[in-house]
Amino acid sequence: MGRLTGGDPSLLRRINSAVVLHALRDAQTPSLTELVQSTGLSRPTVEGVIEGLTESGLVVEAPADPQDARKQGRPARRFRFHAEAGHVLGVEVGAHEVRAVLSDLSGRMVGSHAHEVAEKASADDRLERIRGTVAELLRRAGVARSTLWAVGVGSPGIIQADGVVRLSTALPGWTGLALGERLRRSFRCPVLVENDANLAAVAEHWKGAATGTDDVVFVLAGLSPGAGALIGGRLHRGFMGAAGEIGALHLLGREATPEHLLSTTGEPLHPLDEPAVARVFALAKEGDAQAREALDRFLRRLVHDVAALVLAIDPELVVVGGWAAGLDGVLEPLREQLARHILLPPKVTLSALGQEAVATGALRLALDHVEEQLFAVARTSFPLR
Amino acid sequence: MGRLTGGDPSLLRRINSAVVLHALRDAQTPSLTELVQSTGLSRPTVEGVIEGLTESGLVVEAPADPQDARKQGRPARRFRFHAEAGHVLGVEVGAHEVRAVLSDLSGRMVGSHAHEVAEKASADDRLERIRGTVAELLRRAGVARSTLWAVGVGSPGIIQADGVVRLSTALPGWTGLALGERLRRSFRCPVLVENDANLAAVAEHWKGAATGTDDVVFVLAGLSPGAGALIGGRLHRGFMGAAGEIGALHLLGREATPEHLLSTTGEPLHPLDEPAVARVFALAKEGDAQAREALDRFLRRLVHDVAALVLAIDPELVVVGGWAAGLDGVLEPLREQLARHILLPPKVTLSALGQEAVATGALRLALDHVEEQLFAVARTSFPLR
Repeated sequence: MGRLTGGDPSLLRRINSAVVLHALRDAQTPSLTELVQSTGLSRPTVEGVIEGLTESGLVVEAPADPQDARKQGRPARRFRFHAEAGHVLGVEVGAHEVRAVLSDLSGRMVGSHAHEVAEKASADDRLERIRGTVAELLRRAGVARSTLWAVGVGSPGIIQADGVVRLSTALPGWTGLALGERLRRSFRCPVLVENDANLAAVAEHWKGAATGTDDVVFVLAGLSPGAGALIGGRLHRGFMGAAGEIGALHLLGREATPEHLLSTTGEPLHPLDEPAVARVFALAKEGDAQAREALDRFLRRLVHDVAALVLAIDPELVVVGGWAAGLDGVLEPLREQLARHILLPPKVTLSALGQEAVATGALRLALDHVEEQLFAVARTSFPLR
Repeated sequence: MGRLTGGDPSLLRRINSAVVLHALRDAQTPSLTELVQSTGLSRPTVEGVIEGLTESGLVVEAPADPQDARKQGRPARRFRFHAEAGHVLGVEVGAHEVRAVLSDLSGRMVGSHAHEVAEKASADDRLERIRGTVAELLRRAGVARSTLWAVGVGSPGIIQADGVVRLSTALPGWTGLALGERLRRSFRCPVLVENDANLAAVAEHWKGAATGTDDVVFVLAGLSPGAGALIGGRLHRGFMGAAGEIGALHLLGREATPEHLLSTTGEPLHPLDEPAVARVFALAKEGDAQAREALDRFLRRLVHDVAALVLAIDPELVVVGGWAAGLDGVLEPLREQLARHILLPPKVTLSALGQEAVATGALRLALDHVEEQLFAVARTSFPLR
């Protein structure tokens, strides 16, 4: 243990910076004396660290506490983490829509913007739509692009660790796209890319239906369902980044595809035709026999896919999201069927973040990256470039 | 950081003990000077720690190095971790057999013993058979029961963290059994209980087909398959300890059970009747049409279950074990089918530990517990009682 900090004074300085930043974030506006107490560091060390952090813009002096003023002598100087010193961005690339959300370094949301995109748009057009959506969001929020510290991006498909799309059947020209690299040209900060369902799981855990639950599976329900899982509070990506891509399961039994299952005419639905799907849900609600049969077939498939995930992973909670329409009708049958066939069924609930789940998870991904740099002693200089 | 060891001298002593033990294990027979160098601790500290560890029997003096003798002056004293100071035990409770393996504190195997048990034996009889098997193993190995530091036990079913069997359909009277507590009466050391497939995964990772692979699923093939998964090198138990219990998946589709699938007569096989299963495998090999059809049906089910695990978890490697008979015929079709339907299929291989996989994993579980105590600063006194 004696060797951990003994040999490298700059490492020690960085550890001390991280310790002080942690204490600042936890305590709102501590005084120097309070920081000395909460960190266990010496007063000169804390003073030195605060000076450095103030120079880099990460710490600002807070107004004096009125309580302090009543005491004798000069009121103690107080400090706070300057969360507005930088921003992070979360982006969802969808089949019909591009969405971006913006927050400061503490994760406080400062803006959100979405824009339609044609389902058949080329990769170049879709990338252009992402850039436009981000520019519009930054403009509306009055935030300079130069204050961005990290950008997270959520995309359908299997995403490699280097930000290349290994496979995506949902978006034209998407398979093989170097998505991270293409977007990095628009930003001077790190751009991190992740599967959309994985990010939705992260988002629901952060501020949605799964707060306080560390073992959660998020099912992005659709004609071809995807899923993301947190295990022990950490995103489980899988060895190839393909964990949760349960949609392929039906191929094994040579069973009908979901596009056929939800059809009321015998002709398959188009995989991305959400209005047609919403129509089937609505007709079923009105009692249309064919629509109810189609919905039943679809439900059996969904239950089977979710059961496979649950049996393999054994989560505490399953969060169902994705489609805006019809999902409330899916929840009860799903719960019933899981409870009937699985001895220890998990709780099942609807997404609390809805349409913003993926973008919010992308923002959390960016924020995690920033916090890792700030608090986990990985860099000497701020901001991150 | 300054607070980690600042306040508690006994904690510091324990950390130093752990650091020295680590260094001893890594370096075989280091001298005091070498220990001072490799630990970064002061010479008096290392001397004090070595003295304490020698008193507790964990460190012994090693013969002097002939190299040292050629140098001037008195040859340096050398020390080694005294792995024979204690032993750990791994036990598998099976439907037809009870098996125990024994090692010293370094994991070096010193004995193994197995004994048949009637499939229909009561829980009491099965527990008695475990005790008898362990007693016989200790006797043959010439190891005193008092030198046991920890016992690991592998059992079919869903095992709670407290060692109670939450559900086991394979063994009579097993569901609800306080297995850990019952066995603790026979030992004066910790007894840890875990699901059998989980332990087989741990064992193959330790010294079997999955060494060097941190993301692995072990499929305990049988009429009702179970599975264990390591994620990032760590056992994934699931929120309720039920992860990998994929056997229930077929219930959802109201499909035929495996007992029906493998039947050539229309009458279901008995779930635990391994000879009958072996007969079907053998007949299929001889070209019997009905047996081949039965085997095909069984294979499709196995492929589907393994695919569900693979799609959910995305491991680097799938290890197939369990049945002794017929599994080599399963491997190729399984590989083919997974490769046909899964974009990024994992490697698939047979268990390298065979019949000893579960007991070996149970031993590793016990050894992990001991090492945690020795090296992770959890206790002040040795041995663990």
